[in-house]
Amino acid sequence: MPRIVMKFGGTSMAGIERIRSVAARVKREVEAGNQVLVVVSAMAGETDRLVQLCREAAALHDPKEYDVVVASGEQVTAGLLAMTLQNMGVRARSFMGWQLVRASGIHGNARVDAIEGAMLDEALNGSTVAVIPGFQGVSEDGRVATLGRGGSDTSAVAIAAGVKADRCDIYTDVDGVYTTDPRIVPRARKLTRITFEEMLELAGVGAKVLQVRSVGLAMRENMPLRVLTAFDDLPGTEIVPELGEEDMERNAIAGIAADRNEARITLTGIADKPGTVASVMGPLAASGIHVDMIVHAATVGAGSSDLTFTVPRASLAQAVSAIESSGAVGNGRILTDDKVAKVSIVGVGIRSNPELAAKMFDTLAERSINLLAVSASEIKVSVLVAEEEMELSVRVLHTAFGLDAPQGEAA
Amino acid sequence: MPRIVMKFGGTSMAGIERIRSVAARVKREVEAGNQVLVVVSAMAGETDRLVQLCREAAALHDPKEYDVVVASGEQVTAGLLAMTLQNMGVRARSFMGWQLVRASGIHGNARVDAIEGAMLDEALNGSTVAVIPGFQGVSEDGRVATLGRGGSDTSAVAIAAGVKADRCDIYTDVDGVYTTDPRIVPRARKLTRITFEEMLELAGVGAKVLQVRSVGLAMRENMPLRVLTAFDDLPGTEIVPELGEEDMERNAIAGIAADRNEARITLTGIADKPGTVASVMGPLAASGIHVDMIVHAATVGAGSSDLTFTVPRASLAQAVSAIESSGAVGNGRILTDDKVAKVSIVGVGIRSNPELAAKMFDTLAERSINLLAVSASEIKVSVLVAEEEMELSVRVLHTAFGLDAPQGEAA
Repeated sequence: MPRIVMKFGGTSMAGIERIRSVAARVKREVEAGNQVLVVVSAMAGETDRLVQLCREAAALHDPKEYDVVVASGEQVTAGLLAMTLQNMGVRARSFMGWQLVRASGIHGNARVDAIEGAMLDEALNGSTVAVIPGFQGVSEDGRVATLGRGGSDTSAVAIAAGVKADRCDIYTDVDGVYTTDPRIVPRARKLTRITFEEMLELAGVGAKVLQVRSVGLAMRENMPLRVLTAFDDLPGTEIVPELGEEDMERNAIAGIAADRNEARITLTGIADKPGTVASVMGPLAASGIHVDMIVHAATVGAGSSDLTFTVPRASLAQAVSAIESSGAVGNGRILTDDKVAKVSIVGVGIRSNPELAAKMFDTLAERSINLLAVSASEIKVSVLVAEEEMELSVRVLHTAFGLDAPQGEAA
Repeated sequence: MPRIVMKFGGTSMAGIERIRSVAARVKREVEAGNQVLVVVSAMAGETDRLVQLCREAAALHDPKEYDVVVASGEQVTAGLLAMTLQNMGVRARSFMGWQLVRASGIHGNARVDAIEGAMLDEALNGSTVAVIPGFQGVSEDGRVATLGRGGSDTSAVAIAAGVKADRCDIYTDVDGVYTTDPRIVPRARKLTRITFEEMLELAGVGAKVLQVRSVGLAMRENMPLRVLTAFDDLPGTEIVPELGEEDMERNAIAGIAADRNEARITLTGIADKPGTVASVMGPLAASGIHVDMIVHAATVGAGSSDLTFTVPRASLAQAVSAIESSGAVGNGRILTDDKVAKVSIVGVGIRSNPELAAKMFDTLAERSINLLAVSASEIKVSVLVAEEEMELSVRVLHTAFGLDAPQGEAA
């Protein structure tokens, strides 16, 4: 009998009416002959309310106590969904994170180590739907541990892998993964199929459909995902290990991502000698600041160099302070710019076709868009542009790479 | 080092400001050299909100799922209080019910079987305040179990007994146990000391300061209780195994209780033969209806009899229907009256002094108050009166038994 995990986000669980509609969807999968596990988020807004209570209680609070407080939201929706299913004549029971999900690492941002599958097997083999609160488990010291915001996606994938499910369906408030943000490009298209790698790159550069960690985990576990809307009966997007023959017609580029959450730091006139970059990156890493794009250019003959890189916009002040106190800049200067954005093309086609990067640069150059930095991975090319040129960049790239939906077929 | 349990009700935990004030009170006890365990209720209104969600999800719902949903309220306040204490420089951590409190029996109304004391001892001996959600534990099958509404008092007493605490302080929104309801008798006095037995009788007849089960448990465990207000620094009422020499001056009657939650059923003209009472009480017991005062009087020479008893007002319709379908009334009639109230005098003095009951009847007779039924236990005498005469009855008894506070000393 096929075994599936269905995960529902906070918008789908916001209130009893919506929970009833989720239950109806679960019932359909049961009646279609599936063994079903459901992973639920807290009601929309509830986690924010609980986080706010923690902040009011203590600006700096013990993450172990934070976990106890915020984990309660999913406990409530799990119990409510189980009783709603029972009321519709579907056998169901809730499990708590501490009964099933062993986690470790930092409280408030723990990772899943193992799923206690025996209890779940017993329920599923007894035709009972297992309803499980997302976002939480039990730490090695026996305390409630949460997985970080958005962690319910990761719970769902970990549980799917733990019970050897055939598939994990992520129901959310969008109906799939798009070629780009439809608010920027109204003719963005929903993708039928995308690879894990592509999804990881799209998630990492700002497409917020799925939590990045959950995609990485699905890739490692080879667990097929589907992203679907909980509010309609539309096909959604499949996330698969690799594209098949049926995807031959798909574009080499899967999508275009844009991310305003970047700030640029440029250090000018710093020493041009081995170890300079390391002397800057070291203090940033020690402060837990993630550095993204890095460009290092020596000024010929001057013995000095310029170093440009990006950090998350929210970490800009902290990054500057870490660099200043490290003394790594010497007589150089620190320039910052938080009015920048990163635009990326993502697609498995990039691996085999270097022309795609060239086409990206040409397309932007034709519109006189200035590239502040460039970085690339195997299946992604990113450029840093002025924030005011971000939307234009996305639009012209979307058209250039043939991603625009035909007229009348737009999202 | 003295070890104490402090229990705080929902009104004391309603919002971060009040939680801070609770934390300050806990800190004082720590600084006074006590090992402290704190048992907390959910924020006022939160449990009602969660119960309402369950009702909306399914009119008849699985009590195991109900438990999962409603137990979350205390989990939140436990975490918040622990982080607030830490923020004030007090070592503290929360424990969850499932980590500590083994329960059994009916979900939604479980009883505490045992406390896992080792983890608590470790915390307390390490000068750490243990914060524990009230009202919940873990059932034999490893699921969340709640103890029934008001169960946090019982949690507190069970935990106090489990860790061999020296005392259990119940902080609530009243400042102690009064000789009667001050809304009825403005000159009611706060009692300095009361016995477990007296408290049980007062709780059972409508003085809602403490959950009845918690008092019974404290009596069995010989755990001294104090009832205090969380909103002021007043001495409160001690609840002790028996009165000591210092209580010689206390009145023989501890207090007067009044309870409107009664309805009277009279069966007239029923057979006067052995087994008649049993044939009525049997069906009521089978329906789970608690019968309180019972008066059975044969009509001399007629071969028939009248049977009067009281049931909780909310169960009146169900009781009548159970009696009708039992056929026990035969040719007799069923009369009901839900405009009655029970007034009781309670005091250990009643045991040794039968004059006290006589004095009660005389006092009411002087005011021409008609007694619809009478019942008595070792330390309590109750009369059933018309509801409109309840307040007058309480007032005249309060004065007759010397309970009125001196002028100017009223509550």
